[in-house]
Amino acid sequence: MKKIALGVLMFTISFTASAQQEDVKMIKSIFDTELTQGQSYEMLDYLTNSIGARLSGSPQAAAAVEWSKQVMESYGFDRVYLQEVMVPHWIRGEREQARVLNSPKHGRVELNVRALGNSVGTGSDGVLAEVIEVKAISELEKLGKKALENKIVFFNRPMDQTKITTFSAYGGAVDQRVFGASEAAKYGAKAVIVRSVGTVADDYPHTGTLIYDEKQPKIPAVAVSVKDADVLTEILKDTPQVQLYIETHCEMLPDVLSYNVIGELTGSEKPDEIIVISGHLDSWDLGTGAHDDGAGCVQAIEGLRIFKELGYKPKRTIRAVMYMNEENGLRGGKKYAEVAKEKGENHIAALESDSGGFSPRGFRMTGNDNDLKKVRSWQPLFEPYGIYDFDKPGGGADIGPLEDQGTLLIGLMPDSQRYFAYHHTDNDTFDKVNKRELELGAAGMAALVYMIDKYGL
Amino acid sequence: MKKIALGVLMFTISFTASAQQEDVKMIKSIFDTELTQGQSYEMLDYLTNSIGARLSGSPQAAAAVEWSKQVMESYGFDRVYLQEVMVPHWIRGEREQARVLNSPKHGRVELNVRALGNSVGTGSDGVLAEVIEVKAISELEKLGKKALENKIVFFNRPMDQTKITTFSAYGGAVDQRVFGASEAAKYGAKAVIVRSVGTVADDYPHTGTLIYDEKQPKIPAVAVSVKDADVLTEILKDTPQVQLYIETHCEMLPDVLSYNVIGELTGSEKPDEIIVISGHLDSWDLGTGAHDDGAGCVQAIEGLRIFKELGYKPKRTIRAVMYMNEENGLRGGKKYAEVAKEKGENHIAALESDSGGFSPRGFRMTGNDNDLKKVRSWQPLFEPYGIYDFDKPGGGADIGPLEDQGTLLIGLMPDSQRYFAYHHTDNDTFDKVNKRELELGAAGMAALVYMIDKYGL
Repeated sequence: MKKIALGVLMFTISFTASAQQEDVKMIKSIFDTELTQGQSYEMLDYLTNSIGARLSGSPQAAAAVEWSKQVMESYGFDRVYLQEVMVPHWIRGEREQARVLNSPKHGRVELNVRALGNSVGTGSDGVLAEVIEVKAISELEKLGKKALENKIVFFNRPMDQTKITTFSAYGGAVDQRVFGASEAAKYGAKAVIVRSVGTVADDYPHTGTLIYDEKQPKIPAVAVSVKDADVLTEILKDTPQVQLYIETHCEMLPDVLSYNVIGELTGSEKPDEIIVISGHLDSWDLGTGAHDDGAGCVQAIEGLRIFKELGYKPKRTIRAVMYMNEENGLRGGKKYAEVAKEKGENHIAALESDSGGFSPRGFRMTGNDNDLKKVRSWQPLFEPYGIYDFDKPGGGADIGPLEDQGTLLIGLMPDSQRYFAYHHTDNDTFDKVNKRELELGAAGMAALVYMIDKYGL
Repeated sequence: MKKIALGVLMFTISFTASAQQEDVKMIKSIFDTELTQGQSYEMLDYLTNSIGARLSGSPQAAAAVEWSKQVMESYGFDRVYLQEVMVPHWIRGEREQARVLNSPKHGRVELNVRALGNSVGTGSDGVLAEVIEVKAISELEKLGKKALENKIVFFNRPMDQTKITTFSAYGGAVDQRVFGASEAAKYGAKAVIVRSVGTVADDYPHTGTLIYDEKQPKIPAVAVSVKDADVLTEILKDTPQVQLYIETHCEMLPDVLSYNVIGELTGSEKPDEIIVISGHLDSWDLGTGAHDDGAGCVQAIEGLRIFKELGYKPKRTIRAVMYMNEENGLRGGKKYAEVAKEKGENHIAALESDSGGFSPRGFRMTGNDNDLKKVRSWQPLFEPYGIYDFDKPGGGADIGPLEDQGTLLIGLMPDSQRYFAYHHTDNDTFDKVNKRELELGAAGMAALVYMIDKYGL
């Protein structure tokens, strides 16, 4: 008995060692291929510079759908198809204006603002009112209707720069942008101006979605650049009764038919087990959505392309999914999960890259303990590539709706320091992306998909 | 006996736990202070944008010496002083030219070149000759004098993009730039043109030092941009006999008196044990030396400034050292070690930041096993800040000369993906530096100095 057990053990060890060697080799092939013959950077160049910003419902979003379909067809994936989804169609309209009119010390001061996504516009009459500065939504109740009625509420809580991961700081500040308008409307405010949720003190307003509470009046909302938020607070210290004029021409039009774009390598052994690798195709209308989330889209396509290039035939079905409308509705992510449930599909894992095309440092995961333990045991295979952190919880907005189907959710975690310098601004452009950093993320995602495909969950 | 041993053990454990808590707290204070009230970014702005490029022997290098002395004095460090060092004085002169003259297919083609540092110039007559392309110095011997005499040798081995740490790829390609000229001169070559040692296919030549073998004739040497290296190799495929014209006006002038700049917090308990935190003040004359190595200088100053700001009084002596002439002579680093030896100073550790102001990932170290083990045991204190890799060997060029004095050498290891996009080019400018990334490096260095100061080596 002992001899047999020893024999089994020896076989297991030698099998494990040889399987591990094979994995080391395959993962190196994935990285080598991407770093020397990668096409993610060229794809991103086209998507950002030839198509441009891709807000849901825009002609450019339609172009991006067509482009990503054609690209995946040209790579010869087994299936490429569109999934219909109705999306909101918000347009920014004429350039926004904001100015302080009657500061005795500062005179007339123009402020850099951009409307928040989904906001109603002021129209040509604009909004002119006194400004009440607050640092948090919780202050509104104390101030009450008396102080807030007919005022413009200025939400001015900065990101907490002591957070090492900037996404934590973002999470701690973004409620003002998302909920501030309706919260202020409860007390009769006429509009809101929100300090940009960004890490850099510059002149670029950071747009981003707001969500209206349907029970409240919809009031206009703008983001002001970090520098000008500091200007405004200085002015208010001198002249609390200062008048602020805001003019925006944005509006929400009827929903538009759009699409998630899906490319697939069909599994050779277990085609019914699906692994998703994904990003979102839509972007804000400022900049060209290079880091958010052109990077994630081309990394997803690149994962399947590398497998084709290496002649790797997955056992399971691997889908590159480009969701539509992450930014101001999440309709694509919801639709994808809804269809998956209707069809009774079995998604064992879903990866998303939506934290920028920077040097990868790890993966954030949400799932059951066994899956987490299994994926974490692969960490040593990734550490040579600078991908070391498998410990933190997370996933991605678009893959979130798959959670209740038992899918392991995985978000690529790049270095986060630069992300909120560009996020949702005119600065989120191709020149801010480093080719090697983008490629390391693409290869890291592909390598993890390879491991999940090989060993299952 | 057992009870006493248990008591000692319990005391040790509780002492260790409380000391560790203190360290966690202190390190968090260092990071918080730097990320909210840091001055490294503003210092770097001045050094790069108001002073500019700081090649050894230049007026700007003198300005940088004066500036860093004044800055450290203004912060009230215990001692601030200059250390004399004679440095080479190489000047670039008029803008370089290079063109292919007689390509039947391509016609006349201008190439983007910059002279390599320390190179002799061609003068106004230029050099006109046929081109022999090689991929490695080792090919020269096989080609011999017959093939190489009176030719321009084109060294065209690219960086190996499959290396994950770009410094490894740099190490594998830079011999062509450093030794190519004299190696080619051995066989009668008239000049060399070297493919830029850079990761990005763009139009920016990467300069950098060459070292002449004094036994060989000194021949002119230029770096050509990566894109134009690819152009030249294409032309040579069509027309091997093509004539290349190179004109450079650089020259080496007599040595100039310059300085290392040193600021010190004198130790309260063991002032004779010295810890150095450092960068090099000189830069190439292209760009403004923001990542190489303005970043390291301001991070070094910042380390001492943070201690002052936090009211931390070091037990040991901590010196911020800004070496002169790392780029084309290493005179400052050598001088510093020489003086330390003469004075019988005891440098227990020397840190250098000279790999760019990017997000830190770890420290590279060279030293005895006990020191390495001790510092590596602190890794868990740094991991929350994304600084996780303490395993790799390394240090820094300027601190290298201290090695034979038993000093533990430590190099800050930032993410390396972007470094060789900018290194030694017009692109190494302040706008390529992210404030938070720079600050995380500064705080990481200060935190490690704190630990070494507290626990010794």
